[in-house]
Amino acid sequence: MTRVAVIGAGPSGLAMLRAFQSAAKKGAEIPEVVCFEKQSDWGGLWNYTWRTGVDENGEPVHCSMYRYLWTNGPKEGLEFADYSFEEHFGKQIASYPPRAVMMDYIEGRVKKAGVRDWIRFSTVVRFVEYDAEAGDFTVTVHDMKTDSVSKQRFDHVVCASGHFSSPNVPDYPGFDTFYGRIVHAHDFREAREFAGQDILVVGSSYSAEDIGSQCWKYGAKSITSCYRSAPMGFNWPENWEEKPALVKVEGKTAFFADGSAKDVDAIILCTGYRHYFPFLPDDLRLKTGNRLATADLYKGVVYVHNPKLFYLGMQDQWFTFNMFDAQAWYVRDIILGRIEVPADKAVLLADVAEREAREEASDDVKYAIRYQGDYVKELIADTDYPDFDVDGACYAFFEWKKHKTEDIMGFRNNSYRSLITGTMAPKHHTPWKDALDDSMEAYLRN
Amino acid sequence: MTRVAVIGAGPSGLAMLRAFQSAAKKGAEIPEVVCFEKQSDWGGLWNYTWRTGVDENGEPVHCSMYRYLWTNGPKEGLEFADYSFEEHFGKQIASYPPRAVMMDYIEGRVKKAGVRDWIRFSTVVRFVEYDAEAGDFTVTVHDMKTDSVSKQRFDHVVCASGHFSSPNVPDYPGFDTFYGRIVHAHDFREAREFAGQDILVVGSSYSAEDIGSQCWKYGAKSITSCYRSAPMGFNWPENWEEKPALVKVEGKTAFFADGSAKDVDAIILCTGYRHYFPFLPDDLRLKTGNRLATADLYKGVVYVHNPKLFYLGMQDQWFTFNMFDAQAWYVRDIILGRIEVPADKAVLLADVAEREAREEASDDVKYAIRYQGDYVKELIADTDYPDFDVDGACYAFFEWKKHKTEDIMGFRNNSYRSLITGTMAPKHHTPWKDALDDSMEAYLRN
Repeated sequence: MTRVAVIGAGPSGLAMLRAFQSAAKKGAEIPEVVCFEKQSDWGGLWNYTWRTGVDENGEPVHCSMYRYLWTNGPKEGLEFADYSFEEHFGKQIASYPPRAVMMDYIEGRVKKAGVRDWIRFSTVVRFVEYDAEAGDFTVTVHDMKTDSVSKQRFDHVVCASGHFSSPNVPDYPGFDTFYGRIVHAHDFREAREFAGQDILVVGSSYSAEDIGSQCWKYGAKSITSCYRSAPMGFNWPENWEEKPALVKVEGKTAFFADGSAKDVDAIILCTGYRHYFPFLPDDLRLKTGNRLATADLYKGVVYVHNPKLFYLGMQDQWFTFNMFDAQAWYVRDIILGRIEVPADKAVLLADVAEREAREEASDDVKYAIRYQGDYVKELIADTDYPDFDVDGACYAFFEWKKHKTEDIMGFRNNSYRSLITGTMAPKHHTPWKDALDDSMEAYLRN
Repeated sequence: MTRVAVIGAGPSGLAMLRAFQSAAKKGAEIPEVVCFEKQSDWGGLWNYTWRTGVDENGEPVHCSMYRYLWTNGPKEGLEFADYSFEEHFGKQIASYPPRAVMMDYIEGRVKKAGVRDWIRFSTVVRFVEYDAEAGDFTVTVHDMKTDSVSKQRFDHVVCASGHFSSPNVPDYPGFDTFYGRIVHAHDFREAREFAGQDILVVGSSYSAEDIGSQCWKYGAKSITSCYRSAPMGFNWPENWEEKPALVKVEGKTAFFADGSAKDVDAIILCTGYRHYFPFLPDDLRLKTGNRLATADLYKGVVYVHNPKLFYLGMQDQWFTFNMFDAQAWYVRDIILGRIEVPADKAVLLADVAEREAREEASDDVKYAIRYQGDYVKELIADTDYPDFDVDGACYAFFEWKKHKTEDIMGFRNNSYRSLITGTMAPKHHTPWKDALDDSMEAYLRN
């Protein structure tokens, strides 16, 4: 019997399990699927923990989320085409759910699918090796529940371990003698810690914007953010200032490229993440930047140097859950023999090159969103994943961008229409900036 | 040619390199020694970094040290018998050096020995496997400088990766919704962060005592420490209170086993470390508590289940550097064929059992210190490591214990006599509690 190893039980890995279960339900014979998850529960990044650094088993903490995190894009852009928010909650809900609400939704689909016993929890993949002679993979895993290491052989490996967990942490002169806390976004947990403090946020992408906003919402005295290339340029509150690149720190003073300085109590490095696969040797390890057209992945999922190995969700993301689904259904159909991967490696490489060139053709944000929407459509067309209005999702993203420009501390008060059920989301009962209680109970009280 | 892999270039691993270099200098033929160090420099725990969580390569940060750390025992108890503080600094120095001074001393010996080019820096050991047929080890390493994974074979492996790096982090009810920072001692770096704050220190061993004292020294508003079995019982300053076990937290309030409560801004978990060997399979992985008589190590260094594998420094420690030396010289002489390990595994197991029984015979602290002193003497007697006054070191530890009981914030103002050179240490120019500048330059200004 064919055996498939799935590494990670976050949104991508769970999509893989759901894809196989969906095929089985429709009568297909499916391989034996074993999913290895280093955390004690599923959900990947959405599985919140107060822990930082390393986890209870000494492994790097996977979670990069924090308390009070709400989705930073409308839920209408990420809804599962085969499991709507209305199906899960029994009603339509507002458009920017807090983490706990999202986690409940993610779990809902896989609970219904009954795939939990395919997963080996608290089990770390230590190493994967490909045996060219046997044509299969040996996966070495460490089961933390029994503290035992073992090997298993698999015909296919699906790497769905995410790429927003291993922080990119730059060094700056003076960091080793800074008088306050230096923390990467990955280890940021509780905005209330920074109430009354002057905070420096290094970076100008989503983490910087959202963590700065959290700190502002929960009472930071001031926010200073700094950028290398361009300011975020939102209409910030008056106690938020954007500065050019950080140059150095001395004591508690931060110095910037324009010669200005600011005393700060804490520095939060919102400097991104790195693709990190400590369990993969050179011949299997993806090396790519965080971009829409990843290196070395045919159709964005098939590793060109060994087409028995797949990667899910390794792209930079406008689309998320439904893109992971599109990828998982596609990989499933390759494994089931329904879709053929060209045998000629040159064809695979040409596919990658074409995607890269097309991505690089424009810097425009709408272009990028449509580019990834087209990718989702391309994959969906070849499988039985439910078709949905991808153009409508793109439009929701355009609206979201506009709403952010209009009011960065208010964009989450807007509502959008579901592309799966056609229902308009209700307006949330409390503006985001005043909604300090973001429990599921509070959020669903529409 | 015999090949030896040494994992880690901290005090233990460096002792191993120095042991071989010392033999070579005296004319012995030595094996090829390759040391793998995941950090970009040597020194192990003494190699300070401001980084917490994972390092620049995504690997768990090794460093558990913090700014303003001074040795918490007299340097006279850890002096290298073959390289005195006086030889290194050109004069005798005060008895409780700050980290930077210690790092300079540790480096001094190995610089003099010229072993730096035996070390592969920024190289992580991913996995080690023993090939029973060939009788050797395959070591898989990830060189972060080139981002390449490779395998090498070795006749012996010396595991010197330490056991005060992987934190033991307990969970308590309410931690996931605590309003402040929760940090393990491993990730504590800068006491000034906590100035003006109410701090809860969980634990009653060396980390709790020293980190609490650091926070007190640098201006924390109050220190609360809590214990599971017994209070530390020192004569604390008036803003330091000891409480029984933590039960739960709610918001920013911590509740204790005696029914009392305290609002705190931050919780520092001084809850110890775990032996952690993610690169070792079941047949090679040491599983032991943090104690003087480790499980499964003949003479405290030879792995009873595979005597080609050695562990250094895996004991709980009164003695440190000179004990690592005694172990390294002993392991060296086994590898060089000067010392024979009994072929009968029952003899090895009996050795372990005898050490365990002897450790368990008494709870007395002086007994424990003498027990480890006897162990150091036992190993030294069989090699050419310079003999030194181990009983004198025990006596220095007894004095240190007494000085702590007399004045917990003043014990570091005492001086002791070197057991290597016989010279009395000078009194430090500034009492510890007032010495906010602890740079090497400031410390050496006697």
